[in-house]
Amino acid sequence: MYREEIKVLDCTIRDGGLINDHYFTDEFVREVYKALSKSGIDYMEMGYRSSKELYPTQEYGPWKYCDDDKVAEIIDGIESAIKLSVMVDAYRVKEQQFAPADESPFTMIRSAIYVKDVDKGIELVNKTHDLGYETTINIMAVSKEREPDLIEALDQLAKCPVDVVYVVDSFGAMYCEQIEYLVKLYIEHLPGKTIGVHCHNNQQLAFSNTIEGIIHNANYVDGSLAGIGRGPGNCCLELIIGFLKNPKFDLAPILRILQDHMIPMRKEIEWGYLIPYMLTGVLNEHPRAAIAMRKTEDKDKYEEFYKDLTQSLD
Amino acid sequence: MYREEIKVLDCTIRDGGLINDHYFTDEFVREVYKALSKSGIDYMEMGYRSSKELYPTQEYGPWKYCDDDKVAEIIDGIESAIKLSVMVDAYRVKEQQFAPADESPFTMIRSAIYVKDVDKGIELVNKTHDLGYETTINIMAVSKEREPDLIEALDQLAKCPVDVVYVVDSFGAMYCEQIEYLVKLYIEHLPGKTIGVHCHNNQQLAFSNTIEGIIHNANYVDGSLAGIGRGPGNCCLELIIGFLKNPKFDLAPILRILQDHMIPMRKEIEWGYLIPYMLTGVLNEHPRAAIAMRKTEDKDKYEEFYKDLTQSLD
Repeated sequence: MYREEIKVLDCTIRDGGLINDHYFTDEFVREVYKALSKSGIDYMEMGYRSSKELYPTQEYGPWKYCDDDKVAEIIDGIESAIKLSVMVDAYRVKEQQFAPADESPFTMIRSAIYVKDVDKGIELVNKTHDLGYETTINIMAVSKEREPDLIEALDQLAKCPVDVVYVVDSFGAMYCEQIEYLVKLYIEHLPGKTIGVHCHNNQQLAFSNTIEGIIHNANYVDGSLAGIGRGPGNCCLELIIGFLKNPKFDLAPILRILQDHMIPMRKEIEWGYLIPYMLTGVLNEHPRAAIAMRKTEDKDKYEEFYKDLTQSLD
Repeated sequence: MYREEIKVLDCTIRDGGLINDHYFTDEFVREVYKALSKSGIDYMEMGYRSSKELYPTQEYGPWKYCDDDKVAEIIDGIESAIKLSVMVDAYRVKEQQFAPADESPFTMIRSAIYVKDVDKGIELVNKTHDLGYETTINIMAVSKEREPDLIEALDQLAKCPVDVVYVVDSFGAMYCEQIEYLVKLYIEHLPGKTIGVHCHNNQQLAFSNTIEGIIHNANYVDGSLAGIGRGPGNCCLELIIGFLKNPKFDLAPILRILQDHMIPMRKEIEWGYLIPYMLTGVLNEHPRAAIAMRKTEDKDKYEEFYKDLTQSLD
């Protein structure tokens, strides 16, 4: 698949940070930055911009806050055309400050919202857009939303200056039909906006759903190295780059960082396709029960977990 | 997805046998048989019917041959409505004998062919059909075939008594578009026949490609427990059963055998999504080079492997 408009965003540090309290080493983040730059990836997401009042700095690593000067220090001296993004939970905004874009290492601010928070998202978009940033709205957990509410939110977003609106399959519950349906719905209600897809891998569908999004004209796609991310993780970046035919992409530097860094990391922290996440995906539920049970001795008692889960939904 | 005509075949013992020289214990095979029966799976494939002259019995376990009396012994005393199938490499047929279906534990004989062996496949279909078996033809490595040759083979198959013809993505190279294209092509050229899909998981697309087949009216689908199979393995049976809505299927017995048997087995033998298999899939190549490198000390040197692989194809 070749379409010049397609942009690839790597969320290794951001989504991966959810499983290690954002404690990636500076060296690792720098190596990822180098590899992605060499591979021609369009955007690298460095983490979250979170409130230090809500999330004390003793409890989290630097990628929970992504201070401009910290990020500037990481990328210093590395030649790169990659753009940097940072994610903000728009419903948890407190005192977060943003410098004007031309004084910041970041190019893009991505606002994560639930449908009910659309006004907070729009406020953040207006603010960061005025500061000169590219902006996105990532509507999470859309597989749980009522359609009239979703459409109302999309119609509101159509009137704000946001550049990209993402279909986010937070629970890894969607099949290709749902991705097709939602991407078409977003395109219909967001004339002139770009559509993105961000998929989770509960049912080993993150990559195929990303392709499905691309087929139906989503042009921003997210992936992470070896799919690292909370629970089942994300679409594997290496699969996206294997699929896209734009000659600007080079798979080799990605393979290198997979072998040098992701193989050892997988021995330390767990993510990927595992039955408890598969089950929350099939049931269109938040993975929290699966995350909790994976930390116990009963982490492989799938049958009992399934029974408990279905009973709790009765 | 609910469609009464959809039949699910488990190939755990058959395809899994390719990674342990067919040495599954009797106890394990019996437990799989029990679990699949309880789950309402339609077919269980017990292995291959191979020539003992070509493959000496000192070198392989019993599931390389699947003697009728061996299989009868395994299933003895277990209540079950599941049908049993066995696979024959039609291009390696020598002295294999088949009893009449009503004297055999098997209901279905599946003949694996390459396009060039279509005549051998048809001969085997004629023979086993006359003995009273259900029959399938599984056209392997179809991602490498020239279309006129494939169409000629399909047109020949249309005239023989085969019940089901499978699209087999042997190299895990196909995306949804190719599955759609081939399933439609098979349906067009095989009026009145049933179409099946058998997908490999090199690019984490085995499940989504199976769904794609179902959407375009393939009615026989293959899966295996935890996706066990050679190299990257197959579509996970648990994902198929999570997706299909036919109330005759029950996921719980499958979860049980995953936790009791597949978790320990994965510590002993390797299969699943691994970068070397992903790369042979992207390049539409047989996984043999990846299988070989996974047995060496350099098993995680992905960048070098990719370079060697692409250079060898120049």
